[in-house]
Amino acid sequence: MPDVFSLRKTDGSARRGTLRLAHGVVETPTFMPVGTAATVKSLTPDEVRSAHSQILLANTYHLWLRPGRDTIVEAGGLHRFMAWEGPILTDSGGFQVFSLEGRRTLDPDGVTFQSHIDGSTHRFTPENVIAFEEALGVDIAMVLDVCVKLPASREQLEASVRMTSDWARRSREAWAEGATRLFAIMQGGLDRELRERSAREIVSLDFPGYAIGGLSVGETREEMEATARFSAALLPAEKPRYFMGVGTARDVIVAVDCGIDMFDCVYPTRVGRNARAMTRSGEYTIRNAAYARDYTPVDHDCGCYVCTTYTRAYLHHLFRANEMLGPRLLSYHNIYLLNDLMRGARDAIERGEWAAFRDRTLAGLY
Amino acid sequence: MPDVFSLRKTDGSARRGTLRLAHGVVETPTFMPVGTAATVKSLTPDEVRSAHSQILLANTYHLWLRPGRDTIVEAGGLHRFMAWEGPILTDSGGFQVFSLEGRRTLDPDGVTFQSHIDGSTHRFTPENVIAFEEALGVDIAMVLDVCVKLPASREQLEASVRMTSDWARRSREAWAEGATRLFAIMQGGLDRELRERSAREIVSLDFPGYAIGGLSVGETREEMEATARFSAALLPAEKPRYFMGVGTARDVIVAVDCGIDMFDCVYPTRVGRNARAMTRSGEYTIRNAAYARDYTPVDHDCGCYVCTTYTRAYLHHLFRANEMLGPRLLSYHNIYLLNDLMRGARDAIERGEWAAFRDRTLAGLY
Repeated sequence: MPDVFSLRKTDGSARRGTLRLAHGVVETPTFMPVGTAATVKSLTPDEVRSAHSQILLANTYHLWLRPGRDTIVEAGGLHRFMAWEGPILTDSGGFQVFSLEGRRTLDPDGVTFQSHIDGSTHRFTPENVIAFEEALGVDIAMVLDVCVKLPASREQLEASVRMTSDWARRSREAWAEGATRLFAIMQGGLDRELRERSAREIVSLDFPGYAIGGLSVGETREEMEATARFSAALLPAEKPRYFMGVGTARDVIVAVDCGIDMFDCVYPTRVGRNARAMTRSGEYTIRNAAYARDYTPVDHDCGCYVCTTYTRAYLHHLFRANEMLGPRLLSYHNIYLLNDLMRGARDAIERGEWAAFRDRTLAGLY
Repeated sequence: MPDVFSLRKTDGSARRGTLRLAHGVVETPTFMPVGTAATVKSLTPDEVRSAHSQILLANTYHLWLRPGRDTIVEAGGLHRFMAWEGPILTDSGGFQVFSLEGRRTLDPDGVTFQSHIDGSTHRFTPENVIAFEEALGVDIAMVLDVCVKLPASREQLEASVRMTSDWARRSREAWAEGATRLFAIMQGGLDRELRERSAREIVSLDFPGYAIGGLSVGETREEMEATARFSAALLPAEKPRYFMGVGTARDVIVAVDCGIDMFDCVYPTRVGRNARAMTRSGEYTIRNAAYARDYTPVDHDCGCYVCTTYTRAYLHHLFRANEMLGPRLLSYHNIYLLNDLMRGARDAIERGEWAAFRDRTLAGLY
């Protein structure tokens, strides 16, 4: 089976690569918008594409519960169900299930949990999660992992690494090695030794790609950055690296600088629904009175549909009037912005000008 | 000033015409989707257009209160504010204000009312309403009228006709006779004699167009249809006729049959947001379990973006998961459906096959 990833260029730790997946090619570094329930909230797949998204993420946990495997399989797979023709990555549900404190029981074989929707009981194992993701026909499936909230004890972190590695081995064996490519997940909290152990164990199993999990879960920004940086360096250069749950403009730039190729986060759509505009010169809340009669674009430096069509005053009005179009337009712009930053990052790495691009972009954001 | 309307063909009472307005040409009969707060809920202007809408309606009452005249004027007018380049009709706010029972006081000069948003006090007169609509730069402005809820006493209806005629006269005098064309409104409830009086009085003032108001306010469907039919016949053939507040598939067909040229209603978007699909073979609620695994289009006979892209199962899922994309897609489809019915009506009238089209369409809807 050919490698999914070609590393084309590096500039410092920053990497410029290409992912070849069943539903298309993805140029990296890339941001993946999140379509939790088989929809990037408020947007059509055409818009997600026109905002220059190359690949999107969907959530195993949510789709397992609703609409469920059979509905999606009968529809012809997740791509046809949601009418998105490009690549899809599904997380494993590990993160969501481990957020269900008091409603889940972990054992060495898997995890039993209660649905947040109707309280019904379900069970994930490494094997049935992979089977689910393969049945959906996604391009990249994540293994089921064991997350812990930070701060955590050394014992908790060790157990998380041990079980995640064991489950990665079982996932690797269960994987059909077909069009759905399987990525493993590194755990270990902020502990360098545990991160090294985790990386060593999952890398020895030879996956098509690797993710850094267990961050963005309560640590400081400095801790996250330091951990991402040494964790990325523990992963093989020739495989794609995915940093889970990162999505502010600043964080994606820092992640690229750490040598990461892929990110996902609900951040741009979640804050967009709450009237928060992401721009190249920082964020602001467009619902604030200051924008009621501001007839300039959401972001002066943006060429997206929203910024070339509407004013801040109009979006301000939409949010004040509780009109659905407001969340929709700002979600679109925020996704476009992150995708555009990644396009700039790719160009800068290709030209060997990453450090200048990084410094200029970060300076603009503050 | 040239006439805004050309009557091109009649077939029985049904009429095929063309409206020439400041922002474009409108082929009639036509349905006007409602963009109450300067947005057709959940949709962009591009989508409203791609659903074959030719003209849309906005509400004076709502825009007066929020964002207010100055914001829209400073934005360059309502078209630029909301980024809709086609014709716009604004109602006068009469209907909304008279719905504010207990929060408005009528006098011969105008009406004072409390905002439903913040309780602040405002006043509409025939003159300041016209001035507002002209300042917004809309293509068609409606005069301020005096509505009554049905059933109403003869005295109430007579007073409504008397004041509406008087205010129409004042509106006609206040009107700048510029690019914004002014339409008068007929009142009179279900009373034929009062409808005749109202029609005689407003027609004598020579407006560019006339509306039938005071229906869809509590009467039966049969009463509404009978009144619309004799009311339409009271209006001059060479002027456009607008039936306010009509928007089910059945009602628009019946209205065309009564000799009406224009309609508006929140119906398709309001029911769409509540999971109700309008189709050529009747309506259904897509949230119902029956559609959970139905992989056919929303309407089997529809060529719209939604019907050619998604399944009932997917829309069912979106509504179950409270995803904004569901209301959005169904609003789009429902508007497309009404516009498509009107396109069919125009073709049928041109070919002299209106009666067959009407009967076939109505039969399909039941």
